[in-house]
Amino acid sequence: MLSQCPSSVRIVEVGPRDGLQNEAMAIPVDVKVALIEGLAEAGLSTIEAGSFVNPQWVPQMAGSDEVFHALSRREGVRYTALTPNLMGLERAIDCGVDEVAIFGAASEAFSQKNINCSIAESLQRFEKVMLRAEQAGVRVRGYISCVLGCPYEGDIAPRVVAEVAAELQAMGCYEVSLGDTVGVGSPQSVNAVLDAVLARVNKDFVAVHFHDTYGQALVNIYAALQRGIAVVDSSVSGLGGCPYAKGAAGNVATEDVVYLLNGLGIQHGVDMQALLSAGAMINQYLGRESVSKVARALTRPNN
Amino acid sequence: MLSQCPSSVRIVEVGPRDGLQNEAMAIPVDVKVALIEGLAEAGLSTIEAGSFVNPQWVPQMAGSDEVFHALSRREGVRYTALTPNLMGLERAIDCGVDEVAIFGAASEAFSQKNINCSIAESLQRFEKVMLRAEQAGVRVRGYISCVLGCPYEGDIAPRVVAEVAAELQAMGCYEVSLGDTVGVGSPQSVNAVLDAVLARVNKDFVAVHFHDTYGQALVNIYAALQRGIAVVDSSVSGLGGCPYAKGAAGNVATEDVVYLLNGLGIQHGVDMQALLSAGAMINQYLGRESVSKVARALTRPNN
Repeated sequence: MLSQCPSSVRIVEVGPRDGLQNEAMAIPVDVKVALIEGLAEAGLSTIEAGSFVNPQWVPQMAGSDEVFHALSRREGVRYTALTPNLMGLERAIDCGVDEVAIFGAASEAFSQKNINCSIAESLQRFEKVMLRAEQAGVRVRGYISCVLGCPYEGDIAPRVVAEVAAELQAMGCYEVSLGDTVGVGSPQSVNAVLDAVLARVNKDFVAVHFHDTYGQALVNIYAALQRGIAVVDSSVSGLGGCPYAKGAAGNVATEDVVYLLNGLGIQHGVDMQALLSAGAMINQYLGRESVSKVARALTRPNN
Repeated sequence: MLSQCPSSVRIVEVGPRDGLQNEAMAIPVDVKVALIEGLAEAGLSTIEAGSFVNPQWVPQMAGSDEVFHALSRREGVRYTALTPNLMGLERAIDCGVDEVAIFGAASEAFSQKNINCSIAESLQRFEKVMLRAEQAGVRVRGYISCVLGCPYEGDIAPRVVAEVAAELQAMGCYEVSLGDTVGVGSPQSVNAVLDAVLARVNKDFVAVHFHDTYGQALVNIYAALQRGIAVVDSSVSGLGGCPYAKGAAGNVATEDVVYLLNGLGIQHGVDMQALLSAGAMINQYLGRESVSKVARALTRPNN
């Protein structure tokens, strides 16, 4: 049953960007820096630390420049950022980011509503970003949203996901992260998408980014691990919530993923106690309890 | 990947007993009856409706007699109860229960602390219960607690679980429910236990009863489904919490299990909307939000 599971997994911590971006309140630079440094301290080797988008659109991400400049960088950790366009990329390069991410959708309706253009146009717009990133020696990761369902279209054809993944690879991305943006996936739909995607690209090119809106993230991650996928995105304490469902969960919690990997005997390099400390710090700032069941169980008073 | 999964699953709804038993407040008979009737209305075919224990020990279960007498029974639904001894069984028989449950542990330490005797003694004590139940034509289910870990002993040897399962079968139980009482299991430990158990009894004899304390219940259930297990215990809205971790989750939520089975294309006979209504009713009474992520996402205001 576990034979296909990888022996080690790289966790991509997206809390400081994808997580905090979806919080109601904007977080001060020093709190973001403390969070990112705490996550690096915990052993996370890839941390999405900011986003160089127009702060008019995403005010929560204003100050990403200051965050990158203030950060004490840890050897061996990649600090990454989302860059929606060439202007954002130039800011990211000025900040010395190790890696940037671009994004496409697997749903035409989502692409239109989210970034106001077709899937094909969105990828075309990133061509200049890819060229400039290559020139600057910055690696590029590609996100695909809505791979297991769309809030506007419903079901998504796996072949569309596979096509976008192959295009992102052809454009020069070193990795593609398959996002279940609305959390509606199941092991069955995960397997269907991976059947299609792995027919076009190698499994080493593929990461999964699953949301826990319906509590299915871990089971879907397990289904992906069973297919040999070895890169998993998650957010400390499940930061962020779901932008499409107020009060519902969003990103799967890193603590829960670490617990799963521990149970499976899969290496990941993250220290649970240090991770819990980083999560406790940001939750204290936000004035709320962790969304992570593992964090809640492990930090209960009688522990 | 899904080849071994059963085409249909029977959900055993334990909310009215295992769930409410672990709530801080005792629930009035009419509220329990409304909950049980709502769950039957939703299509649940096996409902653990009460427990005939000494109310001095478990005051939340006082009134199980009244509950069974007040209940409008639905054709095709089995209403079951936990019976710790012959006196409890006689009360259950007087109430016309369809099925009773006895319980053993896979941990000597847990057995001593929980019921003050060894595993072997606990099973021996149930012999009279088994005889009387057979005489009365009442089926008996066996629970085994701590199959994937114990709050006192830690790891549990799969062969001990297998031995207890085989003994419960030899005693005349028609089914054994493997309980991850503290929720520490992983797909790996689930597989290890099932390797041992399925070497002694047929898979049709086995149910799983997994707690979501560390958010791992669904992934563990999926691992069991992949081994062909076709009976899953769950609790509407995740009622009950965890008696060993205040504030932490306990029983996996029926809504989350139903969502998983839907995603896998596995039949179960439960209507999600009616299930959500039953959950909403009891949560309103308890004055809190559902623990189920599915319930929270599907009942959000903008739905």
